[in-house]
Amino acid sequence: MKAEIIAVGSELLTPDRVDTNSLFLTEELNKLGIEVVRKTIVGDDRQLLADAFRGALQRVELVIASGGLGPTEDDLTRETLAELLGRHLRRDDAIVRAIEARFRSFGREMPRINVRQAMVPEGAEALDNPRGTAPGLWLEDAGRMLALLPGPPRELKPMFLEQIVPRLMRRVSGVRMFHRELRVAGMGESHVEQLIAPIYKRYADVNTTVLAAPGEVQIHLRLWTADARHAEKTLGEITAGLQLALGERIFTTRGESLEAVVAQLLTLNNATIAAAESCTGGLLAQRLTSLAGSSAYFLGGVVCYSNELKTAWVDVPAETIQAKGAVSSEVAVALAEGIRRSAGSTLGLGITGIAGPGGGSEEKPVGTVHIGLAGPAGVKARALLFPGDREAIRWQASQIALDMVRVHFLYGGPAPGSLQASGQEPGRG
Amino acid sequence: MKAEIIAVGSELLTPDRVDTNSLFLTEELNKLGIEVVRKTIVGDDRQLLADAFRGALQRVELVIASGGLGPTEDDLTRETLAELLGRHLRRDDAIVRAIEARFRSFGREMPRINVRQAMVPEGAEALDNPRGTAPGLWLEDAGRMLALLPGPPRELKPMFLEQIVPRLMRRVSGVRMFHRELRVAGMGESHVEQLIAPIYKRYADVNTTVLAAPGEVQIHLRLWTADARHAEKTLGEITAGLQLALGERIFTTRGESLEAVVAQLLTLNNATIAAAESCTGGLLAQRLTSLAGSSAYFLGGVVCYSNELKTAWVDVPAETIQAKGAVSSEVAVALAEGIRRSAGSTLGLGITGIAGPGGGSEEKPVGTVHIGLAGPAGVKARALLFPGDREAIRWQASQIALDMVRVHFLYGGPAPGSLQASGQEPGRG
Repeated sequence: MKAEIIAVGSELLTPDRVDTNSLFLTEELNKLGIEVVRKTIVGDDRQLLADAFRGALQRVELVIASGGLGPTEDDLTRETLAELLGRHLRRDDAIVRAIEARFRSFGREMPRINVRQAMVPEGAEALDNPRGTAPGLWLEDAGRMLALLPGPPRELKPMFLEQIVPRLMRRVSGVRMFHRELRVAGMGESHVEQLIAPIYKRYADVNTTVLAAPGEVQIHLRLWTADARHAEKTLGEITAGLQLALGERIFTTRGESLEAVVAQLLTLNNATIAAAESCTGGLLAQRLTSLAGSSAYFLGGVVCYSNELKTAWVDVPAETIQAKGAVSSEVAVALAEGIRRSAGSTLGLGITGIAGPGGGSEEKPVGTVHIGLAGPAGVKARALLFPGDREAIRWQASQIALDMVRVHFLYGGPAPGSLQASGQEPGRG
Repeated sequence: MKAEIIAVGSELLTPDRVDTNSLFLTEELNKLGIEVVRKTIVGDDRQLLADAFRGALQRVELVIASGGLGPTEDDLTRETLAELLGRHLRRDDAIVRAIEARFRSFGREMPRINVRQAMVPEGAEALDNPRGTAPGLWLEDAGRMLALLPGPPRELKPMFLEQIVPRLMRRVSGVRMFHRELRVAGMGESHVEQLIAPIYKRYADVNTTVLAAPGEVQIHLRLWTADARHAEKTLGEITAGLQLALGERIFTTRGESLEAVVAQLLTLNNATIAAAESCTGGLLAQRLTSLAGSSAYFLGGVVCYSNELKTAWVDVPAETIQAKGAVSSEVAVALAEGIRRSAGSTLGLGITGIAGPGGGSEEKPVGTVHIGLAGPAGVKARALLFPGDREAIRWQASQIALDMVRVHFLYGGPAPGSLQASGQEPGRG
């Protein structure tokens, strides 16, 4: 089955807003084996709206529209559609009572204007909206199906899942979409593509998308089939192939974030962590504490921008800073060891670098970052050179730091004295 | 003049990707006085593509399309359009040579397949693409204008600005869009709307949009006119009216971020700042250091999750934690004073709270946050209760903390002993 999505609302035609409901709708439709072949975004204009619905109903069996169901005169979806299909609008008193009750629950009286939301085209079914005043509509016409949903995501999503999905389930064939998401840190998109293309291209029935996200590459595998065993087998095979090609660079085959993977590893190993940051300015601590329950493994962190505070707060020897510079492997290691000692954690991370745009030199250009990871068995350091702007450099630095923690647990921790200070690795982007 | 935007590419119909080129294009078209009335997103399918172009050319004078100009067989925009308009495709040898030169500059030979990119419909003008292989196309047909641009933003944006804007400039009337953006922290969307609607509704020619962003409300004023003086006068009047209605809650009338405003105030006042965070986990430090040059005012920060580290690192008295609890005004104040002392900064911020989802109680529910701001003249504390999930609570807490710094400078700093510990303020959101 093929579908089109129509997003209604003049605010979606400004430079400030993008329609994101269609991403959720596409994902859910795909799961049912329904393909989205076109999306249209149109303002609150009767003629343009009619044109959009007319075109979509000519092309596909299923049209999902969002927005334009509010109580004001701008909201034209209901009227336009009734007119287009030649159906009268009738007032549904049960809906009026439901809207009145909703207003009463806030201690307010229903404004007369909201009666418009109770108008239902003949033959349409109104869809209950417990989270807002605008009911949705479900309508069948000449073999076409049409769903009108409210625009706010917190109203649209449950209405779609609870009231549209069951209606579609009865009509779709057994074909569903099976999806797997692998993520890779510390490699560029084209490098990943080059290594994996020979593998995934052997599977003509699997749709593979390689997306570059900040500091990582995401590989989406999608297979449309009615045969769940075939899907599991095929996706399992490709995944195994990609794991051979990319090895430890794959940090998840389940679409998790890097911080979630690191959190699991820390918890599993009963380990705690602390961080001393300079150029990332708190980003690493923020990511380590972004998940619920992070107090179980994250003890604390410091952000020390100035040399004085690096010494005062984390005991980085002033002589080391003087001899090697604040941006050096030695200082990254001292930060990692210092914060580990001070917090009493299993692991300590130290980051120092030049996020720019200022502060770079020929010897240490903008993007130079040193990361240290101290553990019970010793300390490891990496030197990197990241491309991009300040935000991109900070994000990539935090990404590699988290990845060092992940790799640490893969190999059971670094050997003592494995400090690498032998020049910079190439940038990873 | 009215325009439609067509984004071409099957990847834009997956659940992972949203078309963002149209936001940039809309902004730039609006500046020229051109209104975008519809956006269409369509896959790499000859019939669906032809249908999209045919419809748009029937409705509007200007059609801007992005994507589908690559060298592979999926890329159909060029062929489809030539066929639709009944124009032959001719190979442009100058383009072939330009693509060959581009490949040579990377030390590679041009694959034969790229010759497709040199095919130009009769009567169309090829648009140079110094940043990629796909040239753009400009085409006029029966009073309609059509621009085909490459999909990657770094190729599309300069091509549009350098080659499309000048062509449009010659054709548009003097009407342009004038835009002003005000931002408000610490108030909800509906509250702002209620206070300002009576003001902006008096200006029928100004399009006003109120958008809720995390922890702030953005007010966009847009006026389409040929008369720059009228625009400045009108937008200035509304801005003044909104300032009367919202007072100090407006933190910018120029669309800046709250961290940028705080950075300016710190710099202007030759002040430095440090932060001690618990529930925000480094987010506040990260935001304070997100701008270039932040080392001039941000000295350092600590993230102390555990009670022990609050005492060890920031000298929060263990008795205070025991008597009042880690989430209390007293601890927020002690964090603020402690970090100020330890970093030697002009101002110190302390945040403690319950970001959830666990850790709440009847007395201190999830969303409870205490913020302290210590300065030379004393200390101020606020108690808040934020709605939303972990991420929303942390963001709103950092937002109010930054806003306290801003308000501090508005009034030249808090009076000594102005500690407010008299119960929670209502949640702001």
